Amino acid sequence: MKKLHEHECEACRRDAPTATSNEISEFKILIPEWEVIEDSGIKKLVRRYQFNNFVNALAFTNKIGEIAEQAGHHPDLLTEWGKVTVTWWSHKIKGLHRNDFIMAAKSDYSYDTGS
Amino acid sequence: MKKLHEHECEACRRDAPTATSNEISEFKILIPEWEVIEDSGIKKLVRRYQFNNFVNALAFTNKIGEIAEQAGHHPDLLTEWGKVTVTWWSHKIKGLHRNDFIMAAKSDYSYDTGS
Repeated sequence: MKKLHEHECEACRRDAPTATSNEISEFKILIPEWEVIEDSGIKKLVRRYQFNNFVNALAFTNKIGEIAEQAGHHPDLLTEWGKVTVTWWSHKIKGLHRNDFIMAAKSDYSYDTGS
Repeated sequence: MKKLHEHECEACRRDAPTATSNEISEFKILIPEWEVIEDSGIKKLVRRYQFNNFVNALAFTNKIGEIAEQAGHHPDLLTEWGKVTVTWWSHKIKGLHRNDFIMAAKSDYSYDTGS
C-alpha cells in the first residue's frame, strides 16, 4: 500500500467537500507532528521545522516551494532564522482537503530524507 | 549623499539603543511603503510585496535571503502565492535599530530594480 507522501494531489474543485472530522482524525495519525488549527473559521495544517541557521531554513523553504509548484498546490511558508513554518489548506474550499494531508506528508518526507 | 539602501549595517550590540520616535519618523519618510507595527511590545517594520505567481514570490524571498545573509541580519519572510511579507527588527535589542531601516530600503531597492 502506498504511503501518504507517495500519493499525488487530485484536482481540487471549488465544490469539493472539505475533509470530515473522521477523515481528519485518520489522516492526522499519519502526520503526527502537524497541528490542525482554525484561522478565521478555516481549518489549516501547520508544522514548524527546525534548522541550525538561516541558509538551511531557506533551502527547505525552496524544497517545499518545488514540491508545491509540481503539485500546483501552494502553502504559506514562514522562513525565520533556524525555522520554517509551513501551513497547508485548500483556498478553493476554504478548508482541508485530502490534498493538504498528502502535501503535509510530502513536506515531512522532504525534511526527514533531505530530498 | 548616500541613499539609505547604500548604507551598510553596523554590528548591533545587545546594549545598543532602539531607534527613538524622532529617528523612526525621519527614516520612515525614506521607506513610505513600510508600516511600523508593535508585536508583543516589540516594534517591527513590515511590508507586503506583490507578485503575479508563486515562483516569482519565492524568487524574491531568496533575493531578500541573500541580502540578509550578506548583512548578517535576518528578517521574517512569509511567502504566499503572489506575495511576500517581509518583517525586519533587531532581535538583540527587541526593537528597531537603524539597521532595520537600511535593510527595508535594500529590500525596496531589490524589488524596484529586480536586482
